[in-house]
Amino acid sequence: MSTDPLVIFTPSGKRGHFPVGTPILTAARQLGVDLDSVCGGRGICSKCQITPSYGEFPKHGVTVSDDALSEWNSVEDRYDHIRGLPKDRRLGCQATVQGDVVIDVPPESQVHRQVVRKAATARDIIMAPATHLYYVEVHEPDMHEPSGDFERLKDALREQWQIEGVCAPMNILHRLQKALRKGEWKITIALHKGHRDSEHRILDIFPGFYEGRIYGLAIDLGSTTIAAHLCDLRNGNVIASSGVMNPQIRFGEDLMSRVSYAMMNPGGDREMTSAVRTALNALAQSIAVEGQIDPTQIVETVFVCNPVMHHLLLGIDPVELGQAPFALATSESLSLAASELELTSINENARVFVLPCIAGHVGADAAAVALSEEPNKSEDLALIVDVGTNAEILLGNKTRVLACSSPTGPAFEGAQISSGQRAAPGAIERLEIDPATKEPRFKVIGSDLWSDDPAFVEATAATGITGICGSGIIEAVAEMRLAGLLDARGLIGSAEQTGTDRCLPEGRTHSYLIWDGTASGGPRITVTQGDIRAIQLAKSALYAGARLLMNEMGVDTVDRVVLAGAFGAHISPKHAMILGMIPDVPLDKVQSAGNAAGTGARIALCSIEARAQIEATVREITKVETAIEPRFQEHFVNANAIPHATDPFPNLNGIVALPQVNFNAKTDGDGGRRRRRG
Amino acid sequence: MSTDPLVIFTPSGKRGHFPVGTPILTAARQLGVDLDSVCGGRGICSKCQITPSYGEFPKHGVTVSDDALSEWNSVEDRYDHIRGLPKDRRLGCQATVQGDVVIDVPPESQVHRQVVRKAATARDIIMAPATHLYYVEVHEPDMHEPSGDFERLKDALREQWQIEGVCAPMNILHRLQKALRKGEWKITIALHKGHRDSEHRILDIFPGFYEGRIYGLAIDLGSTTIAAHLCDLRNGNVIASSGVMNPQIRFGEDLMSRVSYAMMNPGGDREMTSAVRTALNALAQSIAVEGQIDPTQIVETVFVCNPVMHHLLLGIDPVELGQAPFALATSESLSLAASELELTSINENARVFVLPCIAGHVGADAAAVALSEEPNKSEDLALIVDVGTNAEILLGNKTRVLACSSPTGPAFEGAQISSGQRAAPGAIERLEIDPATKEPRFKVIGSDLWSDDPAFVEATAATGITGICGSGIIEAVAEMRLAGLLDARGLIGSAEQTGTDRCLPEGRTHSYLIWDGTASGGPRITVTQGDIRAIQLAKSALYAGARLLMNEMGVDTVDRVVLAGAFGAHISPKHAMILGMIPDVPLDKVQSAGNAAGTGARIALCSIEARAQIEATVREITKVETAIEPRFQEHFVNANAIPHATDPFPNLNGIVALPQVNFNAKTDGDGGRRRRRG
Repeated sequence: MSTDPLVIFTPSGKRGHFPVGTPILTAARQLGVDLDSVCGGRGICSKCQITPSYGEFPKHGVTVSDDALSEWNSVEDRYDHIRGLPKDRRLGCQATVQGDVVIDVPPESQVHRQVVRKAATARDIIMAPATHLYYVEVHEPDMHEPSGDFERLKDALREQWQIEGVCAPMNILHRLQKALRKGEWKITIALHKGHRDSEHRILDIFPGFYEGRIYGLAIDLGSTTIAAHLCDLRNGNVIASSGVMNPQIRFGEDLMSRVSYAMMNPGGDREMTSAVRTALNALAQSIAVEGQIDPTQIVETVFVCNPVMHHLLLGIDPVELGQAPFALATSESLSLAASELELTSINENARVFVLPCIAGHVGADAAAVALSEEPNKSEDLALIVDVGTNAEILLGNKTRVLACSSPTGPAFEGAQISSGQRAAPGAIERLEIDPATKEPRFKVIGSDLWSDDPAFVEATAATGITGICGSGIIEAVAEMRLAGLLDARGLIGSAEQTGTDRCLPEGRTHSYLIWDGTASGGPRITVTQGDIRAIQLAKSALYAGARLLMNEMGVDTVDRVVLAGAFGAHISPKHAMILGMIPDVPLDKVQSAGNAAGTGARIALCSIEARAQIEATVREITKVETAIEPRFQEHFVNANAIPHATDPFPNLNGIVALPQVNFNAKTDGDGGRRRRRG
Repeated sequence: MSTDPLVIFTPSGKRGHFPVGTPILTAARQLGVDLDSVCGGRGICSKCQITPSYGEFPKHGVTVSDDALSEWNSVEDRYDHIRGLPKDRRLGCQATVQGDVVIDVPPESQVHRQVVRKAATARDIIMAPATHLYYVEVHEPDMHEPSGDFERLKDALREQWQIEGVCAPMNILHRLQKALRKGEWKITIALHKGHRDSEHRILDIFPGFYEGRIYGLAIDLGSTTIAAHLCDLRNGNVIASSGVMNPQIRFGEDLMSRVSYAMMNPGGDREMTSAVRTALNALAQSIAVEGQIDPTQIVETVFVCNPVMHHLLLGIDPVELGQAPFALATSESLSLAASELELTSINENARVFVLPCIAGHVGADAAAVALSEEPNKSEDLALIVDVGTNAEILLGNKTRVLACSSPTGPAFEGAQISSGQRAAPGAIERLEIDPATKEPRFKVIGSDLWSDDPAFVEATAATGITGICGSGIIEAVAEMRLAGLLDARGLIGSAEQTGTDRCLPEGRTHSYLIWDGTASGGPRITVTQGDIRAIQLAKSALYAGARLLMNEMGVDTVDRVVLAGAFGAHISPKHAMILGMIPDVPLDKVQSAGNAAGTGARIALCSIEARAQIEATVREITKVETAIEPRFQEHFVNANAIPHATDPFPNLNGIVALPQVNFNAKTDGDGGRRRRRG
């Protein structure tokens, strides 16, 4: 048995004997204890702070005397003086073993911290970013052993960090000599490690010890909006978040109209590529301003997006995605230079990681949802729906995962709705209709008051009442059904049939008046028969996709439903089920996952292990192509109705009473699809 | 023992038994016989042509019957009809084994052909270019197994060529879908293999089977001239050669004046980088025109150059190379995208390989000379001198190789010489002086006649007699010494002292008149005392470098001298030795290696094995830095004289008689360095 002192690390519990004089950092490294260091043990970075414990530790079988560590030294003194060391803390690289000792590694001194937290489901991930900062001391040049400055830098990385296979872009070689001399042969480098190869690529260099930080962008590139999170690559913290409209909207609201634009207009794909790249550069700049960092500190970007956005981002003509067999140009994940995508507003050597696409209609955004929600690790059968302009649908558990995409169109986002608008202050987001009086009450974004509150008008004076957003229209349609203003086929009754003057004739159909602001110069907000049809089409597509996957899986029910997407976060599960958007499950089994695609992007940004994991997961997913499945059309047609009380929705029937109204339409509003009645 | 037929390949002698019906190409691959194929055995490319032999082969112990191969088939018929198959040839992918057979693989059907031949030393190298063409057939997309077109291309390369680790730049992904569809899922790709990693990078794609070829440029980027060879990457043949002046000359004639320009002028390095890159683009375009190919067919470029040119090519400020310790930014070989060097006139994905530098003053050009001349494989001790604006000097044998660089300046290239000019038509390149009459006779570039030939004037009418080039000035100085017009210190005698009116006073010194063309409007060509001094400085530097390496090696003599460089090819060994440029060896031990650096560049272009080899060789070379060696100065001063008969040049003294003249200088012409005489 060794007579060397025993060193025990907590919380890991790792232990070992080390000679007197061994720095704690060295002991930690030899035991594989996760203790951070950027400067490699030179007392510069202070990342290796540890807390020694003294006294009796019966559990560990040791007694730690007051002199178990070397005395507080001048390096620690200087560091404490300049920046302050928390009480009881020591620098792991300076304190050396003198006797048996118990050392606690506080969370902030661990490299692999668990940090990407999601509001709803408390999912943590362990930090393992692709890009790290390393401080090295490089040998000065020697005429008698002539080697390049870059070769001596690589030697230093090998000797001081055991890193091999380092390469650098030309612009780093342009700057290297000056940086080394300015830093007096000390330098900090931002080094990016590929997750599929052993190549280390220098992204940036800083003379001496760099006090700053490096950042990454997690970008959810949607058809309608582009959402970005600026994350600290050291700890995964989100420093700033920002979103802009996708400027490609001017080329077409939905994906297929953009594909059509590319087909019909020579160079149209390049126009759209250029538009989105310009927007991304502007977004990166503004988020850097918001985060109070220099844009060149952004050294990584992760993208999640649907296949059409994926191709247009990459500069690939999406025309093949518009026609069977919907062949992707490339489906695997991509590791690129940001410059290849003309992302010039961030670090010139920044890297881009694009998550893999699952299929021609199921994109990297669905992969990101899978990374965030992990259906492949679920014990029960989960249906995960990412509601956007297209709905990405995943169904599975740890034995098998299926995926498809369904063309819901933008109705769920408030587009193609007569009074629809994006979710912004002034938009109606919640709505109830009194089944007796048929009178609505509602809330708008920007105020917590319901519209029947006396203070409501004053509270909303600033924003006004401007329209109805995605979650508002879903609640409106569901509440109209509950209040008997709408029959199961989706027809709005007349004032006579419904007993309320709010049902107004509009052409040969009727609409329901929610709010008339015309007296004060505001809009008149109604739900028209056309709006009902748009929502019916959208929800039928969504439901049909889910049913198709359930068929493939051979099940009639699922255990839980996860609503993802920024919009999914605001849908009322009850109303979604009344509408027939999702299969019937107990209401408490409907969860919101927030922006799961964005969370997936953040996870991939923070962990190269997660990148490898989602690549493996995507390979295992069974892809289902809705466009060629005859049963999809069948489900789609069947899902058109808004449930009867007799529909197979036992959970729904248990919580709401669906009226058995049946309005005769004078004419039908959906272009003759339905059989006309007399 | 197998009862399957025996197949014997010549010239390799490889043999094996194969089942009846095995294609010859398959048998060759299984035995590791070097039989080419681009199309992978589909009867398209015709690269796998073989010649079967019939009859008795006692040496091999077989008898080959007439039906040893399958019958001539329709694929061969079609190919023969369209393009013609040489008599007795078969396609190896079509002809199958039916009985014992002897198959000859003609040289043009071998992948690894020996082709880079050098005029003087008959050095062959085996083709192993980094970039090959591969024809593949890609699976069509399938909605039920959705994978990207690129992934299916990678699958095809794996299945049909056993190639893994394929990547592609974005612009290839942009073009891939159209190319696959145009070629009906058949495609030819130009694939580049790294010599240090297993990565295969797609450089270009062609729908269907590509009938064309791909090319590479081997570029010797000198301080004064840029020389390029356009090579067929299939067989190494040089299709065209071209050279231009290095436009950086306007920033300084020699290397140190260019470094000074960069030091003194902010952005000066970038100006020079831009100038040389512009010239390279123009050169690539013109050589493509000359070779009658499309510049996009140039997919690789290899550069050899000295360290200052190296840095300026790469866009690195060369200022560190102008001061001790002469630190290179990077010394190892570089594999780059041509776009990183703004080489935009060739294929947009072309790759660049830059040979490694040996030391701060000994560049990739010296490495190329080492690759071409292989001192490290020499049994005897070879001194290899690459004479240019800087002289690269290698000394060694298979036990050890030393290298240094010596600042000869541009005098050897005709620069800084009063009547000097580049080696071009009209330049005096050979010169003799009659020791009795002191009259010169000479030859000019562009004519085979000596100047005392009656037809000379007419023969040179077109070019005129315009000046004196590097080899001419060396011969002139040596001949002046032999004719007693010059003493051992390098002083030109007066007309009185020498007995010829051609020695004319010029200021306080004299010059020797070679040719007076003023009567017909031409130049007056003389060798001035200043010219003699310039040559003395240059040759002293060269000789001192060689002596320094000999000191380091611990030898007083070498076994052979190799004169490399375009200029080296034209130096008369006798005159070089009279001048004291090179150490004394038997005259037949002085060889010209031609443009050895350019040859090294071609070798590296044609073989990735050669790239690995020169990297290993350079690591083993002992670098000697002339600038800090006190003995270099000592050798330099000692070498200033033009040999006496009593100097240690036994071989020289055996072939020429050096007159013991000694002219008293009225004043000396080298700025007082030498002791003044009364």
